[in-house]
Amino acid sequence: MSQLSEVTQLAMDLIARESVTPEDAGCQQMMAEYLGQLGFDIEPMVFEDTTNLWARRNQSGPLFCFAGHTDVVPAGNLSHWHTPPFEPTIIDGVLHGRGAADMKGSLAAMLVATKRFVNKHPEHKGSIAYLITSDEEGPFINGTTRVIDTLEARNEKITWCVVGEPSSTAKLGDIIKNGRRGSLTGDLHVHGVQGHVAYPHLAENPVHSAAPALAELSQMHWDNGNEFFPPTSFQIANIEAGTGAPNVIPGELHVQFNFRYCTETHAEDLKQRVHNLFDKYGLNYDISWVHNGSPFLTDHGELLSATCSAIEAVTGYATDPQTSGGTSDGRFIAPTGAEVIELGPINATIHKVNECVSVADLDTLADCYEQIMERLLC
Amino acid sequence: MSQLSEVTQLAMDLIARESVTPEDAGCQQMMAEYLGQLGFDIEPMVFEDTTNLWARRNQSGPLFCFAGHTDVVPAGNLSHWHTPPFEPTIIDGVLHGRGAADMKGSLAAMLVATKRFVNKHPEHKGSIAYLITSDEEGPFINGTTRVIDTLEARNEKITWCVVGEPSSTAKLGDIIKNGRRGSLTGDLHVHGVQGHVAYPHLAENPVHSAAPALAELSQMHWDNGNEFFPPTSFQIANIEAGTGAPNVIPGELHVQFNFRYCTETHAEDLKQRVHNLFDKYGLNYDISWVHNGSPFLTDHGELLSATCSAIEAVTGYATDPQTSGGTSDGRFIAPTGAEVIELGPINATIHKVNECVSVADLDTLADCYEQIMERLLC
Ligand SMILES: [Zn+2]
Ligand SMILES: [Zn+2]
Repeated sequence: MSQLSEVTQLAMDLIARESVTPEDAGCQQMMAEYLGQLGFDIEPMVFEDTTNLWARRNQSGPLFCFAGHTDVVPAGNLSHWHTPPFEPTIIDGVLHGRGAADMKGSLAAMLVATKRFVNKHPEHKGSIAYLITSDEEGPFINGTTRVIDTLEARNEKITWCVVGEPSSTAKLGDIIKNGRRGSLTGDLHVHGVQGHVAYPHLAENPVHSAAPALAELSQMHWDNGNEFFPPTSFQIANIEAGTGAPNVIPGELHVQFNFRYCTETHAEDLKQRVHNLFDKYGLNYDISWVHNGSPFLTDHGELLSATCSAIEAVTGYATDPQTSGGTSDGRFIAPTGAEVIELGPINATIHKVNECVSVADLDTLADCYEQIMERLLC
Repeated sequence: MSQLSEVTQLAMDLIARESVTPEDAGCQQMMAEYLGQLGFDIEPMVFEDTTNLWARRNQSGPLFCFAGHTDVVPAGNLSHWHTPPFEPTIIDGVLHGRGAADMKGSLAAMLVATKRFVNKHPEHKGSIAYLITSDEEGPFINGTTRVIDTLEARNEKITWCVVGEPSSTAKLGDIIKNGRRGSLTGDLHVHGVQGHVAYPHLAENPVHSAAPALAELSQMHWDNGNEFFPPTSFQIANIEAGTGAPNVIPGELHVQFNFRYCTETHAEDLKQRVHNLFDKYGLNYDISWVHNGSPFLTDHGELLSATCSAIEAVTGYATDPQTSGGTSDGRFIAPTGAEVIELGPINATIHKVNECVSVADLDTLADCYEQIMERLLC
């Protein structure tokens, strides 16, 4: 064990804690003790079932913040794991375990980078903070969004935020996320009149009435995207109607759809266009909407420059800022005015069985994080 | 009880037997004893879980046949019944109980009509038969279709068949069925590629690919119908896709649809047109078909004339031959070349709680049945 880097050891300590969302299983306590020794003020923020950690070193601005989560998705089918998911195991330089890549490896790299930076620059400029939650993989109700509400209420502003989500694809740092699309979900109910297929004139089939509207919706052009974002996309995720019997005309159709939308449009515009379409077809319907998050974009600024420069200095190659992929907790932080980027390990195995990460990559990641701080806080 | 007509008494005896499909509960035994005393040869035909009765008086042609079923649909919610469903109860001249209208009342009327006719005309021309099953309300696999197969195999042909299905709507005999539409069911699976809504370019949403085809199908004009049949109709009965999660693009769409088709088209034509449409849209799909029955029509002939004349003679008003409504076992009898009509009580309460029938109507129905035999067998 003596040859293991500190980053690897910390990552293994975190993986061994079975923190399936929304459990934290002591991960934040471990991080708090580590940060306490580096001069951070520790402020646990517990909201209902969710444990969050806000830790801050110094009170002056600007404020550089690491954001991340200690919870992990469930292990899934245990018989498909080659090693027990909560017993971190290194095989040929690759660390295996649930959360290795998403995102306990990142948390370990943040801690070691912070320790080195603080030891080297005890009088660094501004402040350093950690915003850590245990519900990023869950319903995201009592996590980052509540911490941000608390900070906003006391006018505590993050200047730059690095989220540890696994952004890399082929090699460490090849891709960072400098934005994310917004997400809007609609639950559509189209109302008809149930009946027997032998008496169609007494019924009104909501599948038939809605089919032309759904056909138009699924082929609609929403926008062209822009330099930073692909075009807004619409997907029907679920559709359901019928009693199961082949001779009954259904009385109601339920469709659940989701938009991933770019900064060329707004959630309210999308809602309006959907309503206009259904109104045009004269449907008897209602829609309940869930807005999962607005798009955000950090297309320039000191954080983006520092991150690109740090990665190139450490790895020798340039990174590629992208906005593709799912949502992240960055959507809650960016609206406060913070610059936000996401940088973490290769995401090939996240949320899958046999999740793993290269231990060399974790050390490289720590170097990148440290170099970002060097560029912003010295 | 002494004032009750024999028809009413027999109907009550049948209702008291709890013959929920495919149970017969002794109904056919009771009918066989009654018919045996009238000189019928009794031939039970048991196929797997289904009890059928073939009873015939005389061997010469032509063969007049009563067809019907002793099974009933389940009682449904008992707390909504005003009287126990299997305890026949007369309230204000209306007989209540499961099967009163569909179709134990008809069976009672057939028996009494036959007794009177045979007693009056012991040397009647031709033969009289009963084709009774206990699976009309069930999967119709081991019922009328198997009896017909047996008769066909020994070249025993029905000339005229009166099915006791409840055809009347406002008053007894106002409507008879002289045909039924065919029924064809398709189970469509459209194959796509499952994926995450954030990465639509890696997935293929089968709901999106199928929506234009389903829109066209649901608005397609299949034929104009004809003098006897409404136009062929298409209905989507069930549709289903999705994992339930709002962020997963479904990998497969399942649609179950049903045609009710008239004599202007054929099942094979309908299948071909559906396949042509899906091929036109380039869908990756398969369909499994179930052909529930071909359309049949008795648009002229001695049986239709006799029935119309009998009803007018008994009731004083003209009946209206129609082909609307669901399928019936007539679809299995008509293809042998038999003339088939359906005549039975008012169908307002069939398959519902508090099923009931007017006892006066049952007596009138027996008179109609007897008058039909008078016109065909004397
Ligand atoms: Zn994550
Ligand atoms: Zn029936």
